[in-house]
Amino acid sequence: MKLENPTPINWKFSERAEQLQSSVIREILKVTMRPEVISFAGGLPSPETFPVERMKAAFDKVLSEQGKTALQYGPTDGYAPLREFIAASLSTADCKILPEQILMVSGSQQGLDLLGKVLVDEGSKILVETPSYLGALQAFSVYQPQFESVDTDEHGLIPASVAAKGEGARLMYALPNFQNPTGRTLSIERRMELVETCARMGIPLIEDNPYGDLCYSGEPLPKMLNMNPNGVIYMGSFSKVLTPGIRLGYVVGPVPLIRKLEQAKQAADLHTAQLTQMVVYEVIKDGFLGEHIPTIRTFYSRQCDVMLEAMTKFFPQGVTWTRPEGGMFIWVTLPKHIDSKLLLDEAIQHNIAFVPGGPFYANEAEKNTLRLSFVTVSPERINEGIEKLGKLIKAKM
Amino acid sequence: MKLENPTPINWKFSERAEQLQSSVIREILKVTMRPEVISFAGGLPSPETFPVERMKAAFDKVLSEQGKTALQYGPTDGYAPLREFIAASLSTADCKILPEQILMVSGSQQGLDLLGKVLVDEGSKILVETPSYLGALQAFSVYQPQFESVDTDEHGLIPASVAAKGEGARLMYALPNFQNPTGRTLSIERRMELVETCARMGIPLIEDNPYGDLCYSGEPLPKMLNMNPNGVIYMGSFSKVLTPGIRLGYVVGPVPLIRKLEQAKQAADLHTAQLTQMVVYEVIKDGFLGEHIPTIRTFYSRQCDVMLEAMTKFFPQGVTWTRPEGGMFIWVTLPKHIDSKLLLDEAIQHNIAFVPGGPFYANEAEKNTLRLSFVTVSPERINEGIEKLGKLIKAKM
Repeated sequence: MKLENPTPINWKFSERAEQLQSSVIREILKVTMRPEVISFAGGLPSPETFPVERMKAAFDKVLSEQGKTALQYGPTDGYAPLREFIAASLSTADCKILPEQILMVSGSQQGLDLLGKVLVDEGSKILVETPSYLGALQAFSVYQPQFESVDTDEHGLIPASVAAKGEGARLMYALPNFQNPTGRTLSIERRMELVETCARMGIPLIEDNPYGDLCYSGEPLPKMLNMNPNGVIYMGSFSKVLTPGIRLGYVVGPVPLIRKLEQAKQAADLHTAQLTQMVVYEVIKDGFLGEHIPTIRTFYSRQCDVMLEAMTKFFPQGVTWTRPEGGMFIWVTLPKHIDSKLLLDEAIQHNIAFVPGGPFYANEAEKNTLRLSFVTVSPERINEGIEKLGKLIKAKM
Repeated sequence: MKLENPTPINWKFSERAEQLQSSVIREILKVTMRPEVISFAGGLPSPETFPVERMKAAFDKVLSEQGKTALQYGPTDGYAPLREFIAASLSTADCKILPEQILMVSGSQQGLDLLGKVLVDEGSKILVETPSYLGALQAFSVYQPQFESVDTDEHGLIPASVAAKGEGARLMYALPNFQNPTGRTLSIERRMELVETCARMGIPLIEDNPYGDLCYSGEPLPKMLNMNPNGVIYMGSFSKVLTPGIRLGYVVGPVPLIRKLEQAKQAADLHTAQLTQMVVYEVIKDGFLGEHIPTIRTFYSRQCDVMLEAMTKFFPQGVTWTRPEGGMFIWVTLPKHIDSKLLLDEAIQHNIAFVPGGPFYANEAEKNTLRLSFVTVSPERINEGIEKLGKLIKAKM
C-alpha cells in the first residue's frame, strides 16, 4: 500500500514563513532546562503563585454542573459571563467598557497575531518601543511590516518621537507597565501625551498590559484604554495573575475592530476553550484576584529586592540597570564594548543563563544589554548566580 | 483623565482582513438557537457522546499529581507522551511515524490556519475538492490564494483532475473519509492514485481526517499518510471522538515542514494548553477510545438511518442525496431550479434549519445543494423536520 520511491517534496514555504525564526528565548530555555543551571532567562511566572487547588475545584464544579456545555463548541467572541466580568472590571467612572468590546483569545500572543493579521499589510509602518517585547515583534513580523523604533529614555517611550516618526503608521505597540524587557513604567503625563498624539495622528494604540496588576506598592496607574476607548486597543491576560498554561487572554477595543478580529479568530481556531473560560470565571467571579494578586506582588517584590541587592554588591562599576516598580524583569546595560550574546555563551559554561538584549530591538540592537528575570529562582541561587555573573562581567571590563 | 473629543479612528484593515467574512454556518447557528427550531445545520457532535465523567476524573488526577507543570507554559510542539501515543497509533507495519513529526494544535482549524500561513503566498494556486470544507476555505482564504476546484463525482474527488489542473499548485486539500459536506468516502484505488499524482507533481497533499474513526461498519480505510509519509500532511482531531470544546488536534508531516509550522505556532499562540493535552493523554492512554468510539459509531449510524429513511419517505422524486458510510453529514441535491438559500429562508419560517451548499464551493457554486447533519436531533424531530422540509421542497417542484 506504500508508494515506492516517491519523489521527495522540495518544500516551498511562503515568503512570510521563510523569514520566520524561532524565538531566541525558547531556544535558550531548551539549553537551560538542566537543573544545575541558574536561569534568569525565563519569562515564566513562578509556579509558587499558581492557585492549583482553586483551579482544581473549579474544573470539578464546572464539569459537574455544566459538563456538556463546557465541552461543546462555543462562541468565537468568548464566554459571555466572563466578558461581562472583564468589561465591568475595566470600566471607570467616566469610561464604560461594554462586553461586546471584548474578544477572548488563546493567550495574549494570539491577540498580537490577530492584530497583525487584521491591521498589517506587507510594508506597513508600525511603531514599537526601543526595546520592545520579543513575542510581539515575532507575531507582527509574520505580516512583513516595516518596524519603526520609537525613541525611549530611562522613563520609557518618548511620545514626541511618535509625533516625529508616526506619520502613516498602522499601529503603535506599547507596554506601559513594568515593560518586558526593561521593567520600565510610563508616567501618567506620558500616557496622556501618547494617547493624545496617537488620536491626533489616527494611529491605533495597542496597550499591552500583562504585568499591570503586579505593582509592588500603591495602585496601578490609569489605563490608556480609559483615556481614549475609541482609539486604544487593550490587551489583558490571566497568565501572570492566575496561570499561563491555560492560555487565556483578551483584546478590548472599539466594536468595528473587535468584530473584524472575531472573524479572523474564527478562521484561526474557531474559539478558545469554553471550559477554560468557565473555570476562570468560576475562580475569579467572587473577588479571588483581590486576595490573590497581593500575595504575588509581595513575593515578586521580595525576589526583585534580593536581585537588586545582589547586583549592587557583585556587579562592577560601569554596569547600570533598571529598578522596576513591578513585574518580572530587570534590564541591564553593560559597558558598550561587552556583547551580551558572547557573555551568555560564557555564562552557560558556568551554569548561568539570561536573555541577551539584541532580539528585543526591532531595528538596530544595543548589544551590550541583557534581561534578567528574578521570579523563578530562590534567593540563595539569585545571590550565587549574580555573584558568578558579576565576576564574568568584571573579567571583561 | 479622559481625552476630550478625540478624533475617531478611521479603521484601515489589512487587505487580507477586508475580504474576511464570518462563517455562514456560525451565522445560521445564531438564528437557530431557539429551542423550537429543528436544526440540521450544526456541525457539532452530539453531547450525548461526551465522556464527561472520564474527563472530570482526568482533570482531577492531572491537577492533583502534576498541577504546577500542567498550569505552566509548555513546549510549542506539544506534550511529549501524547505525541508519542499519536505517533504509535498512526504507524503501520511499513510506515513508522515519529513523535517529532507531530505538532499539537488548538483544534484542526488552527492546523489549517498554520498550513495556509506557511505554504500559501498571495495568488498561490491551491487545489480543493468540489465542494470542500467551509472552514478550510475560510482559513486558507486569509492568505489570498487562487482556489482551483478539483472535479468530483459520486465517489468523491477524481485524481485525474488533479493531474490536469495541478501544475504548480502549492497544496492539495482533501477530506477522504465521510467528507464534510458530502459524506463521501474516497476508495483505496483513488487514494493511491491521488497520492501518486501529488508525489509526481511535487504537490503537498493535506489529508484532513476528523471523521475517519466514525465509520458505521468495518474498519477505516488506509490513510494516505501511510502511503507516502514524505508527501502527505495528515490532520487529526479529538473533537469528534472525545469533545470539541477542548480545542485539541494535531498535524503530522515531514520534519522540515513540522519545524516551520512550529515556528508559526510559536508566533501565533506560543503553545496549546499543556493541561488539556495531559488530560487527553490520561483519558486515552489505556485504550479508552477503543471502547468509546464504537458507541459513537452505533449512535450516529442509527441517527443516519432514521434520516435516510425519512428522506426516502418524505422527499419528492427528483431530489437525490448521498448515503454516508460514516461521519455526520448527508448532502442533498435538489432539482437545478431550486436555490437552497431561498429554501432556507422559507424553512426558518417553519422552524427548520440546514446549511445551503453554496459556501462549500471555492469557485462556482451549485446552488441547488444543501447539507444536513443528523447527529444532534432526536429521531422524532428528525422525522418531523424532514417531513416539513419535504413539503417545502415539493411545493417548489
